[in-house]
Amino acid sequence: MDQNELKKAVGIKSVDFIKPQMTVGLGTGSTVYYMVEELGRRVQAGLKIQCVTTSTRTWDQAEKLGIPLKKLNDVDHIDLTIDGADEIDKNFQGIKGGGGAHTYEKTVALNSQRNLWIVDQSKMVTTLGQFPLPLEVNPFGCQQLFQRLEKEGLKPAFRIDKQGNNLLTDMKNYIIDLHLGQIKHPHLLADWLDHQTGIIEHGLFLDLVNTVVVGCDDGPKIIENIR
Amino acid sequence: MDQNELKKAVGIKSVDFIKPQMTVGLGTGSTVYYMVEELGRRVQAGLKIQCVTTSTRTWDQAEKLGIPLKKLNDVDHIDLTIDGADEIDKNFQGIKGGGGAHTYEKTVALNSQRNLWIVDQSKMVTTLGQFPLPLEVNPFGCQQLFQRLEKEGLKPAFRIDKQGNNLLTDMKNYIIDLHLGQIKHPHLLADWLDHQTGIIEHGLFLDLVNTVVVGCDDGPKIIENIR
Repeated sequence: MDQNELKKAVGIKSVDFIKPQMTVGLGTGSTVYYMVEELGRRVQAGLKIQCVTTSTRTWDQAEKLGIPLKKLNDVDHIDLTIDGADEIDKNFQGIKGGGGAHTYEKTVALNSQRNLWIVDQSKMVTTLGQFPLPLEVNPFGCQQLFQRLEKEGLKPAFRIDKQGNNLLTDMKNYIIDLHLGQIKHPHLLADWLDHQTGIIEHGLFLDLVNTVVVGCDDGPKIIENIR
Repeated sequence: MDQNELKKAVGIKSVDFIKPQMTVGLGTGSTVYYMVEELGRRVQAGLKIQCVTTSTRTWDQAEKLGIPLKKLNDVDHIDLTIDGADEIDKNFQGIKGGGGAHTYEKTVALNSQRNLWIVDQSKMVTTLGQFPLPLEVNPFGCQQLFQRLEKEGLKPAFRIDKQGNNLLTDMKNYIIDLHLGQIKHPHLLADWLDHQTGIIEHGLFLDLVNTVVVGCDDGPKIIENIR
């Protein structure tokens, strides 16, 4: 199967985890797109749920499909969040933010009782870091931050949009991607990044995921993080 | 002297630290207002400098006075930043953010070779925390963050504007003030706050200030942090 078919298969499969009356967090990205599409079908078929979203993109898609939506600040809990990931390592640590929505995604994930990630098999890696690690950064002083990251050997690059400008997030911030190749110590890196003024949020999602649905050639595989 | 006279005296005094050709960071607040006013006079009298600012308020004031301004991203260094503070303890640790501009203020301070704080004597305290500690927070998920802060015993309160709405910062975020009374371990608290998703920046300014000019009844007093 090609990558899109794998994504579609896991997207559809993951909706089985959504039960009536749940408050569900909807992630962002190409795999999530298929999940939201399938969820729309089930809502139209009578499934009663309410959802929060992690981006304006997903909000717009879900709204069109008639999925009941709430603002994050207006829900008192989230039962389950389904989101994609850019990389997941053998310890269930992840990188997210390829779509530039990781600040909202992390906020929703941290407030969810369970987190389910849906990925095609190419995202499962031994060590994180081949995928560039996204940082959402404050435009004010971003040049000085960039130099600090460079001095630390973190190989930063601003993410550029199709017009050649700095890509703007939903929050009107910039994205800097760290081209690390390998992240040997994700918790140490996350700790250092947490302390840097100017970084709104980094794309390391550590100790967060409960279940992964992986799109494989022989069908979606469910892996529970039982650590 | 009343508090305003003390603020004016230190504001004027602090401009003596600005030398020709310097790149200067201009803080925000009622004491800084007097400093910028005096700096405007000296620029009009021929002092050659360039400045970056920490808020639209200070930018607007300085622009009207003809002070040459640069965007932070367009300068390669800052020689000296002069800013106010809401509290300074006996170890030269500070709280800032009473004016809601502490994210920009901290960004400028961190990129300055020297930091000078100007305060009236009422701001000098033994232990920080009588002044509520400001947090700039992401509106997305701020209710969940508020509950996390409350559970941690940090006595949070949203800052409200005159119309009764959540106060908006220059970056369109909210402010939550922590009414702690005493901050016995500022580094431990800063570390915990740094790790919370949703907090853009907190108002603890630790190990940053080099010189304090304090407005006292018998004139401005200069205190060097020689630690």
